[in-house]
Amino acid sequence: MRDAVAGCVRNQIQWIAAWRHKLTDIAAEEAGRIIADAGLRVSSLCRGGYFPAASAAERQKRIGDNHRAVDQAAALGTDVLVLVCGPSPDRDIDGARRMVEEGIAATAPYAKERGIRLGIEPLHPMFAGDRSVIVTLGQAIDLAAKFSPEEVGVIIDVYHVWWDPQLYAQIARAQGRILGFHVNDWLSPPPDVLMGRGMMGDGSIELRRIRQAVDDAGYAGPVEVEIFNQALWDSDGDQVCRLIKQRFVECC
Amino acid sequence: MRDAVAGCVRNQIQWIAAWRHKLTDIAAEEAGRIIADAGLRVSSLCRGGYFPAASAAERQKRIGDNHRAVDQAAALGTDVLVLVCGPSPDRDIDGARRMVEEGIAATAPYAKERGIRLGIEPLHPMFAGDRSVIVTLGQAIDLAAKFSPEEVGVIIDVYHVWWDPQLYAQIARAQGRILGFHVNDWLSPPPDVLMGRGMMGDGSIELRRIRQAVDDAGYAGPVEVEIFNQALWDSDGDQVCRLIKQRFVECC
Repeated sequence: MRDAVAGCVRNQIQWIAAWRHKLTDIAAEEAGRIIADAGLRVSSLCRGGYFPAASAAERQKRIGDNHRAVDQAAALGTDVLVLVCGPSPDRDIDGARRMVEEGIAATAPYAKERGIRLGIEPLHPMFAGDRSVIVTLGQAIDLAAKFSPEEVGVIIDVYHVWWDPQLYAQIARAQGRILGFHVNDWLSPPPDVLMGRGMMGDGSIELRRIRQAVDDAGYAGPVEVEIFNQALWDSDGDQVCRLIKQRFVECC
Repeated sequence: MRDAVAGCVRNQIQWIAAWRHKLTDIAAEEAGRIIADAGLRVSSLCRGGYFPAASAAERQKRIGDNHRAVDQAAALGTDVLVLVCGPSPDRDIDGARRMVEEGIAATAPYAKERGIRLGIEPLHPMFAGDRSVIVTLGQAIDLAAKFSPEEVGVIIDVYHVWWDPQLYAQIARAQGRILGFHVNDWLSPPPDVLMGRGMMGDGSIELRRIRQAVDDAGYAGPVEVEIFNQALWDSDGDQVCRLIKQRFVECC
């Protein structure tokens, strides 16, 4: 966390997003202090979610974990907790979708009291079996619409939604609910299901068109660059930051 | 082809589907004769399509290739040519979708004269960058609906559509347009983007529910088992045929 914050400062990047599994060795309060002391702001904490489970007891445990994630988001100093909703414990995908709704209903009031909004992130359908039964922006908006905009919104990641024939209609429909926007690129064919994302400009996504649509839908918050790619992760951090800034200006 | 036909006969499988790239070493007429002489029927020929291209000349060439595919389908003795519509030559995915429509419009009359219907197969969105800009059943139906049901329909492959929140509504809507139904399974997480399909029963798909919906939509044609999986392809053919039949009865 200290290294990442220092790298952002060196490269004039003013926002940072945190992943929860990276907070294990540093308390959320301390991470929040490090970030604030450096003059950075936190765009979101990723991730809550993973609501569906085979037993009611396990589902209750997951809700408890989401409450802890809300507390960590508040301690970090962000107002957005990103939800990766989770896979189904069995083949009943629609049943799992109902469990997601129940999990959000049991988390949203707790989050609202602490000033945290929940951002439902639809994942690419190739993750339907192991990460999220919420797979389209339209479906995420339908789900968010069961709650107030002060409680629940959506996260738009170009990697997850770029293929959707309904994309631009759904981005327009998301107005007032967009809590985050993530950029990267889709390499064709993808070199890996999970770790095959590309740098903006290296792939197939119409980044500027999507970004314009998100702008037109009224989103004026920070944009997260989120690239799961081991080669990039193994590269020099400052070089990656410079390339990100260059490509962001050129492509997004 | 001779081996595959003999294996079907030994295992009391009465239909076979052909892939076009396997016809390179045996003329379509001869393949059709081998199949008919064995008492089998041909469910479909796969594949036409791949319509989008950067230049008008290249698109015209693709249409010519689709006309040849229609001729091969007729020679084989099937009345269905499966369309894998192709990727975009650049980042303009909606432009590529218009090229698909133009390509189908230029192929459908030729096909109709020869008794061949075109089946648009929506592919999983993870193939949007390299194989098909048509990625949902709803989108495939919208496209097919621009033509008569005698000319153009849709192919439903569980692997490509199982994740879709609109799946059952769209299957019902496909009534009168369903030209083929493919089964297999989705392994979670997928071991490979292209070759990671599983045997029915080994994965996450609600096969019987989808099959029932396809039945309810009036489809009474043959069901193709289509499993891209190298380990399975390397196994003994007769054993695979027996396992397919067993799992088909148990799971579909």
